Amino acid sequence: MVDKIAEVMKRVRESTPLVQCITNYVTVNDVANILICFGASPAMVEVRGEVEEFAAAISALYINLGTLTGEQKEAAIAAARRATELGKPVVLDPVACGAISRKMDVIDRLLECSRIAVIKGNTGEIKSLAGYSGKMRGMDSVDEGEDLPEACRTLAERLNTVVVATGKTDVVTDGRRTCLVDNGTPLFGAITGSGCMAGALVAAAAAVESDLFAASTAAMAAMGVAGEMAAELAGPTTPGTFRVRLFDAVYALTGEEVAKRCRIRLV
Amino acid sequence: MVDKIAEVMKRVRESTPLVQCITNYVTVNDVANILICFGASPAMVEVRGEVEEFAAAISALYINLGTLTGEQKEAAIAAARRATELGKPVVLDPVACGAISRKMDVIDRLLECSRIAVIKGNTGEIKSLAGYSGKMRGMDSVDEGEDLPEACRTLAERLNTVVVATGKTDVVTDGRRTCLVDNGTPLFGAITGSGCMAGALVAAAAAVESDLFAASTAAMAAMGVAGEMAAELAGPTTPGTFRVRLFDAVYALTGEEVAKRCRIRLV
Amino acid sequence: MVDKIAEVMKRVRESTPLVQCITNYVTVNDVANILICFGASPAMVEVRGEVEEFAAAISALYINLGTLTGEQKEAAIAAARRATELGKPVVLDPVACGAISRKMDVIDRLLECSRIAVIKGNTGEIKSLAGYSGKMRGMDSVDEGEDLPEACRTLAERLNTVVVATGKTDVVTDGRRTCLVDNGTPLFGAITGSGCMAGALVAAAAAVESDLFAASTAAMAAMGVAGEMAAELAGPTTPGTFRVRLFDAVYALTGEEVAKRCRIRLV
Repeated sequence: MVDKIAEVMKRVRESTPLVQCITNYVTVNDVANILICFGASPAMVEVRGEVEEFAAAISALYINLGTLTGEQKEAAIAAARRATELGKPVVLDPVACGAISRKMDVIDRLLECSRIAVIKGNTGEIKSLAGYSGKMRGMDSVDEGEDLPEACRTLAERLNTVVVATGKTDVVTDGRRTCLVDNGTPLFGAITGSGCMAGALVAAAAAVESDLFAASTAAMAAMGVAGEMAAELAGPTTPGTFRVRLFDAVYALTGEEVAKRCRIRLV
Repeated sequence: MVDKIAEVMKRVRESTPLVQCITNYVTVNDVANILICFGASPAMVEVRGEVEEFAAAISALYINLGTLTGEQKEAAIAAARRATELGKPVVLDPVACGAISRKMDVIDRLLECSRIAVIKGNTGEIKSLAGYSGKMRGMDSVDEGEDLPEACRTLAERLNTVVVATGKTDVVTDGRRTCLVDNGTPLFGAITGSGCMAGALVAAAAAVESDLFAASTAAMAAMGVAGEMAAELAGPTTPGTFRVRLFDAVYALTGEEVAKRCRIRLV
Repeated sequence: MVDKIAEVMKRVRESTPLVQCITNYVTVNDVANILICFGASPAMVEVRGEVEEFAAAISALYINLGTLTGEQKEAAIAAARRATELGKPVVLDPVACGAISRKMDVIDRLLECSRIAVIKGNTGEIKSLAGYSGKMRGMDSVDEGEDLPEACRTLAERLNTVVVATGKTDVVTDGRRTCLVDNGTPLFGAITGSGCMAGALVAAAAAVESDLFAASTAAMAAMGVAGEMAAELAGPTTPGTFRVRLFDAVYALTGEEVAKRCRIRLV
C-alpha cells in the first residue's frame, strides 16, 4: 500500500491529469489550487452546454454538492452520464446530504444515470447515505462514528463503489478491503474546504490509478501528511497561515515523504 | 458594554451557532472562514428548494446582496420569511443599494416578508437607505458621513431594527442607544470582504445574544480589534499578509483582549 | 514605453478607476483583491437587471468567460453593448475558447454587439481565435507558440483590437506595434488566477490610458515584475506563500520599480 502511494503521486505529477470539477463556489478556488499543487490540471466546467463536449478531454470528474445551483445540477447529471459512458471515474462529494433532502434527490439522479467510482463524505454524510443515523449539524458531522467502518462497507457494497469517510481517522473501503488513515490535523476543522480539497485529490488519484481503493487511500494519506506538515510550520492557532502553508506543503510533497509519515492500518 | 463583549464571544465559541449565509461569491470563502475562526459554523445554503427545510436548524441568517443571482434572490426571500416565522435573527448587508436600484427592490421585498434584525452597511449604503444623500462610487462609500449617526438612528427607528454603519468609525444604534466603535485599520480598505466578514460576525453574535445592539457592538469591536492585531503583525503595506493574519487573529482572539483594546463611546 | 508604464500606474493609483468585472467564480476574489492592490476599485456587477444602469458609473469593463453561467452570459452581452455605447473600454478574457465551442459562441455575440478594446488570453486561446491551430488542454495552453506574435497581429488586425497573449514571454500588439514582455515567474503557473488577474489589471490600465497598446503593456509589465518580487520573497516551491506575497507586491509596487525591472522588447 505504501509503495502504491508514492507511485500514484508520481503518476499524477508526470501525467497532469485533467480533473473536471463541478463544485461549490465557497471553496472552488482552494480546490483548483490544491489540484495544481498536487500536479493535476483543474477545469471548472459546469454549464450544461459545455460538459458533454468537454467530457472527451477529462481524466476524472469531481462533483461536489455544496452550493449546487439549478444550472450546476443539470450540468452535473449530464457530465456524470457522459463520463460514465467514456469510462472515466466520477468522484462524488455528497455535501450536507444528511441535512438537506434536495441533496439526496440529486444523488439519486446521479446514481440512476452514472456510475460513481468513489463517494467521499464526512462521517455524518456517509452514515446518512448508508442508512445509519448520521448526525449532522448544518454542513458538519457531529457523529461519534463508532460504527463508521461498518457503515462505509455497507454503502460500498450496496453501490459497488469505493467509500471514503473523513473524520479524526479517515476510513477507506471498497467493501472488501478497508483501511484507516490516521494522518491529519485539528486545523483541518478550523478552515472551510479541507473536505472538498481531499475529494478533489481523490479524483486526481483516481484519474491515474484504476485500483480506486489504492488511489483513494493514497490521496487521503497525501492530504493528511501535507496537513500535518503545514500545521507544524504554521503553529496550532493560526488557521489563516495554515491554509497558505497547506498549498506549499502539497506542492512540495513527495511520495516518499507520504510513505514515511503515513499511518495506515488495514482492518 | 465591555463585559458584554467578552460574554457574547464566549457564548459563540461555546455554542457554535449555525449561521446560514446567502452571500456574494466574491468573498464567500472569507465569510465562511471568518465565521469558523470566530467559533460559529457557516452554512452557505441558498437554493430555493433547500432554504425552508434548512431554516429549522439555523441560529441566524446572513443575507448579503453583493452578487445576488436570480436564484439567490428567491432563496433569500424565502429564507428570510421562514427565519422570521421561527424567530431567528436576520442580518442584512445591503451591498451597493445606493448605486443599483435592483438592490433596493430586493430590500423592499425582504422588508415586506420578514423582520430584519440588523442592517449593516457602509456609510453610503446606510445613508441611501435612510433617505439621506449617501455618496456611493460603485461598491464603495465615498461619503464623509458627518450626519451618519443621525441617519443611522432615523433608519433604525423607521424599520425598528439595529443599524450598523461601517467606516473609519463604526456606528451602531437601535434608535435609542447609539455607540461609536473606533477600532479597525486602514488595511480593511485594502482588501475586499472586510465588510462582508463584519456582517457575518454580527449574525453570529445575534445568534447568541438577544440584545441585538449589544451583539452588534460586540461583533464590530471584535472585528476591529482583530484587524488591528493583524495589521500589527503584517505591516502597513501588505494586504495579502494582512488578510491571512486576520483569520489567525480572529481565531486566537479572546473576549478579554477585545474588552481591553476596544474603543467604544456611547453617544 | 518605460516612462509610460510609470505614468499609467500613477494615474490608476490617483484616479481609482471603477472596473466592472463579469468573471469566473474560481478566481473572482483574487481579481477583486489585485485590482484594489493596483489602485483600482472592483465592482462585480453581473446580473442582467443591474448592468445597464451601472454602466454609467464604470471606467472599464472586464469580461472573463471562465465559468460563465447563463445569467452571466446575458449580463455580459448587455454590459458590453452599453459600455461600447458609452465609449468605455471592454477587455475580454476568452478562457478555454479553444477547448469549448460555447465560449466561441459567446465571443461571437460579444463581437457582434460591442467593440472589444483588448483581448487577453493564453497562447492556445489567442491562436485558436486567430484561426491558427492553438493547442489547448482543458483550461491550459500547451502550445509552443513560435508563431504567436504573427497570430496576435493577425487577430489584432482582423478585430481592430489590442491583443495580449500570455506565456513564458507575453506578446502585446495592436497589429501595428508589437512588443514582448519577458517578466514573470514559473510560480504564475503554480496558482490558478494569474491570467485572470493580469486581464483585470489590463482593464484598470485601459480605464486611464487611451493608447491601449501602452496601457496593456504597462499592466503586463507591472504584473510580471510584481510576480518576480513575490517569488523572490516566497521561494521557488511555495505557491501558497507566493500568492499572498503577490498581493503585497502589487500593492507596494511603484511605477519606477516596474520601469527599472521590466524587460520589454519592441519587435
